[in-house]
Amino acid sequence: MKELVALILAGGTGTRFSPFSRDKLLFPFMGKPLVSFTPVFSLPKTVNRVVVVSNDKNKEWFIDANFGVPHTVIVQNESNGMADAVLTAEKEIGNARLLICIADDLFDAALLSTVVETGQKENVFGVLPGWKTKTYFPGGYLVQDGKRVSGIVEKPGEGKEPSEYVNISGHYISDSDVLLNALKTTKRDTDDVYEEALTGLMQEYEFSMVPYTGRFQSLKYPWHVLPIMDTLLSGIAEFRGENVIIKDHVVLEGQIHIGNNVKIMEFTKIVGPVYIGDNTIVGNNNCIRHSMIGANCITGFNTDITRSYIGDSCWFHSNYIGDSILEENVSMGSGSVLANLRLDEGEISSIVKEKKVGTGRTKLGAMIGNNVRIGVNASIMPGIKIGSRSFVGAGVTLAADLGSDSFCKNKPQLEIAKNSKQLNPTARDQFKTKL
Amino acid sequence: MKELVALILAGGTGTRFSPFSRDKLLFPFMGKPLVSFTPVFSLPKTVNRVVVVSNDKNKEWFIDANFGVPHTVIVQNESNGMADAVLTAEKEIGNARLLICIADDLFDAALLSTVVETGQKENVFGVLPGWKTKTYFPGGYLVQDGKRVSGIVEKPGEGKEPSEYVNISGHYISDSDVLLNALKTTKRDTDDVYEEALTGLMQEYEFSMVPYTGRFQSLKYPWHVLPIMDTLLSGIAEFRGENVIIKDHVVLEGQIHIGNNVKIMEFTKIVGPVYIGDNTIVGNNNCIRHSMIGANCITGFNTDITRSYIGDSCWFHSNYIGDSILEENVSMGSGSVLANLRLDEGEISSIVKEKKVGTGRTKLGAMIGNNVRIGVNASIMPGIKIGSRSFVGAGVTLAADLGSDSFCKNKPQLEIAKNSKQLNPTARDQFKTKL
Amino acid sequence: MKELVALILAGGTGTRFSPFSRDKLLFPFMGKPLVSFTPVFSLPKTVNRVVVVSNDKNKEWFIDANFGVPHTVIVQNESNGMADAVLTAEKEIGNARLLICIADDLFDAALLSTVVETGQKENVFGVLPGWKTKTYFPGGYLVQDGKRVSGIVEKPGEGKEPSEYVNISGHYISDSDVLLNALKTTKRDTDDVYEEALTGLMQEYEFSMVPYTGRFQSLKYPWHVLPIMDTLLSGIAEFRGENVIIKDHVVLEGQIHIGNNVKIMEFTKIVGPVYIGDNTIVGNNNCIRHSMIGANCITGFNTDITRSYIGDSCWFHSNYIGDSILEENVSMGSGSVLANLRLDEGEISSIVKEKKVGTGRTKLGAMIGNNVRIGVNASIMPGIKIGSRSFVGAGVTLAADLGSDSFCKNKPQLEIAKNSKQLNPTARDQFKTKL
Repeated sequence: MKELVALILAGGTGTRFSPFSRDKLLFPFMGKPLVSFTPVFSLPKTVNRVVVVSNDKNKEWFIDANFGVPHTVIVQNESNGMADAVLTAEKEIGNARLLICIADDLFDAALLSTVVETGQKENVFGVLPGWKTKTYFPGGYLVQDGKRVSGIVEKPGEGKEPSEYVNISGHYISDSDVLLNALKTTKRDTDDVYEEALTGLMQEYEFSMVPYTGRFQSLKYPWHVLPIMDTLLSGIAEFRGENVIIKDHVVLEGQIHIGNNVKIMEFTKIVGPVYIGDNTIVGNNNCIRHSMIGANCITGFNTDITRSYIGDSCWFHSNYIGDSILEENVSMGSGSVLANLRLDEGEISSIVKEKKVGTGRTKLGAMIGNNVRIGVNASIMPGIKIGSRSFVGAGVTLAADLGSDSFCKNKPQLEIAKNSKQLNPTARDQFKTKL
Repeated sequence: MKELVALILAGGTGTRFSPFSRDKLLFPFMGKPLVSFTPVFSLPKTVNRVVVVSNDKNKEWFIDANFGVPHTVIVQNESNGMADAVLTAEKEIGNARLLICIADDLFDAALLSTVVETGQKENVFGVLPGWKTKTYFPGGYLVQDGKRVSGIVEKPGEGKEPSEYVNISGHYISDSDVLLNALKTTKRDTDDVYEEALTGLMQEYEFSMVPYTGRFQSLKYPWHVLPIMDTLLSGIAEFRGENVIIKDHVVLEGQIHIGNNVKIMEFTKIVGPVYIGDNTIVGNNNCIRHSMIGANCITGFNTDITRSYIGDSCWFHSNYIGDSILEENVSMGSGSVLANLRLDEGEISSIVKEKKVGTGRTKLGAMIGNNVRIGVNASIMPGIKIGSRSFVGAGVTLAADLGSDSFCKNKPQLEIAKNSKQLNPTARDQFKTKL
Repeated sequence: MKELVALILAGGTGTRFSPFSRDKLLFPFMGKPLVSFTPVFSLPKTVNRVVVVSNDKNKEWFIDANFGVPHTVIVQNESNGMADAVLTAEKEIGNARLLICIADDLFDAALLSTVVETGQKENVFGVLPGWKTKTYFPGGYLVQDGKRVSGIVEKPGEGKEPSEYVNISGHYISDSDVLLNALKTTKRDTDDVYEEALTGLMQEYEFSMVPYTGRFQSLKYPWHVLPIMDTLLSGIAEFRGENVIIKDHVVLEGQIHIGNNVKIMEFTKIVGPVYIGDNTIVGNNNCIRHSMIGANCITGFNTDITRSYIGDSCWFHSNYIGDSILEENVSMGSGSVLANLRLDEGEISSIVKEKKVGTGRTKLGAMIGNNVRIGVNASIMPGIKIGSRSFVGAGVTLAADLGSDSFCKNKPQLEIAKNSKQLNPTARDQFKTKL
């Protein structure tokens, strides 16, 4: 049997992941990069070798990574789709069986083993997982022909799905040369050359499907950090680091990971699952629910953090942070708010590459890059993105995305007049009696 | 003796009660309509029959109401004063003794029995209660002539009162036909036809007065909800519903009614008298004093509710709600404030039917109709009214009334420039040492 | 030996101390004027008589003051420098030895005795203290010539200091007539006539220096209140007045002075050193650290006061007050914030007499005169000064100093349109399940 090569697609520029400056695969969760939680680090034992198609931001990380088997790292920065990504690795994957994984697809790692085993057992040319999902998914759907898969239809539209099964990564291909040839000869007049090539091969070769009903998540847009965080939080264990100080009058509920040297101040409630990184101080009178908070943060007095991702070195003070994502070293002045709900309570959309994209969420706060400063009493509207190294002035209501390296403030708008009003010296005494 | 008919005046359009959309008599307090707390549901046992002059909004409710004696409901939507209201019921009240009550006058119910008994004992044509009040009241004052009442002077002006006694409802008239005739023949060139007609009758017939020093309240303007709430709160009993959850670190002081399925979260203080309706969740780190909160509300984190009326299904989050009235299904974003005090601490006025009306209060917050949404960090000025189904944008300072079905937001006003400021990477460490 | 007269310079108009309206020497700390904490009330026992050069604001106070020896008060309102201040007192200080003290110089009182003793022991014409400081000080530096002082160089510039020793007050002069004559004959073409005159005398007479390494503080600019407060706080003793009420769930740490009739409400933390004056109410869910709070204050719900000076009769409500100084009778509406940190975390400057002055601080909040009112959700920028009797409107972001007797508010800026948005009646139920 040919060598089994896991081809991990981890390249591309990830422009849709703005305002976050990190490579999305290296976006840290609980102190570790996202990719370390994905199936590509739980590959089947039958894999002989790993080839990674990386980009400039994550190349070094992948070079240093340990897959348990030998691995090679190739760089592909321009993002020309999956077919080109596979072809970039052509010299490293000839005359092999392939297990092709998109690195930011998150699903149960056992699926990969099942896919490979099915390929060997059924002795078919290819095996694809088919993800059964209740709601329409804007991706490719598998066409079934008896036991076999006979095509992939991209974005068929709701109600027009050819089957219940969505095409997700983890593809087993028994002959890499046949695939490479098909990728080269398929017309470039579509965004979906890879899927077209597979559909072409399906007319000639047998493809099986492994039905899959587990979780599937992908990190394309910045707001996808939140459901991934939810998944990772749901598995955290109760943990208390060294030198943790929990003051009196603190209420801890549910599973909470508390890192080394963390302090939690009085009159604060934390409702797990919550992760708190090393050296972080959770201030007085806080309420923290279902969130990840990085290392070296100070939440300050009277802060409410709910269903949010907070990177390292963030400072807060009497803020509301709901359903928001803050990359790193973000500070918010007293009273500033990351709103997470439209007044009409409708779906929150976001502008990505100049196009409006529905987020599928009615609760979504801000997405903020690193080294951002937000002034006191500023209001950031739901779904707004703020680029790295930008400042938002005091009292600003920010209702559109703000790019990186920007300073945004209110135009001067004050009227100053002589104050002709007199204070009634006894008014206060009257108020006091009503206290 | 003729039949004794209680004539309950509950019609009129109540336009001065805007922004609240409910009929003022059905405005709910502690889950029941206001009218159920008034003397018209504690009528003297000698009343044989009830006639209600209602309006379209409250008609159905009155039809279903139980007075313990037979009752008839008539509809009068246009509000042409008390004389017309009585005449509307003409066919139902002929050849009877009358006990005429304005349904939204709140006073001690025993007064009605005393009025009727006085009429029978003294065998006079009419009996009026005379409310003795310390401060000037902008209504009608009774003119006394020995033991008898000889006239009613409307709004005499402070210092010109003909007596110490204010004319309030609960009028006993021993012959309805004489009154109806007088109402018909009195000139229509005044707003006070009813009082003019009585003054006319007083020249011919004997009228007695029953002096009254108890409480008297009337619900004309929306801010009148607050003193009525105070009165009803002062009588509430300690109550704990079923399935109530009160977390640790909660402080309860004074008389507090806690409905079924209510949850009260940690680090919250409630100072009675306070009423909390069924299924309401009082969040963490709240302070709630001297207020009524309806059913199905969520007060959220860090909310301060003081001397306020909160209808059902309201949602808050880090708000200050002082001396305010929220009809139903109102949401306030984090950091929004209902201010209740002018900077000069003077009397708060309100615009009613395009005229400025003094409220007699130095502490008064907002009055908000149903289905209203208020954005984060918005500031609503003292005494402001917001109509039903209106939205107030984030960061808005609302200093004038907002009608119903309106969307109010700040004009765009941002200056965005390149951010040339550099953060000092060691500044935070210095701050940390000063914590 | 001639009579020893302590000449206390307490005159001048103190215009640089704006926005505070009090004379800076009478600025109260812990219920007593600043001057009572200075060395001029711990004079050497050898002082025979005191002469005070006062101004109109503090004259009465000095007349009533008790120095333990006879004292005379002279008024000098115009501030023409130290030489003129000394000359103002000419008639009272002839034929005497002088100990010249600037009343708002704060240093260890023992230094004055050492200066006088050195003068007597060494039998020199004059003795000056020399304050050794690590960082450059923008004042006068002493020139040393062996054991003697041979000159004073005003503001030499960093790196050009003639010695390590700064000229501070507490000057001993063995013959007042010689000094007076020198002051009269020195040219008026400089701001530093006094120092020029001394430098002149040093060419003829012997001057010794007493080296001093203790604390030295001076109250020139309004922000100087903070370091003086720090010094006084560092020495406070634990104290509980009469009739103090401390509710349950209150955390007190460090040295805290709690005056008579003070109430501290639930879920509040106080971290000493903190001083709280009589009759003050500290509200629920507060956090108060390293601050002085005057008498008759109400801090309200959810207020955070950090490293700040709060005068008497201030009222707060859900405010952040950081590194700020509030003279007296200042009220802040709910959600208003005194910001204490620039977005770029750089040094905060202030405009004094139309010139920008660096404060040497990266953390500095507002400086507010008496009888000021600040509206809800207003944001006062770091280092801003607000004059007495001024009002700041709701929602204002104040980024420049506001004079006294001013009313400052936002220009009207609302857009009001028909609200076409519909609320989804089931949205709330979905939210509730996610709580």
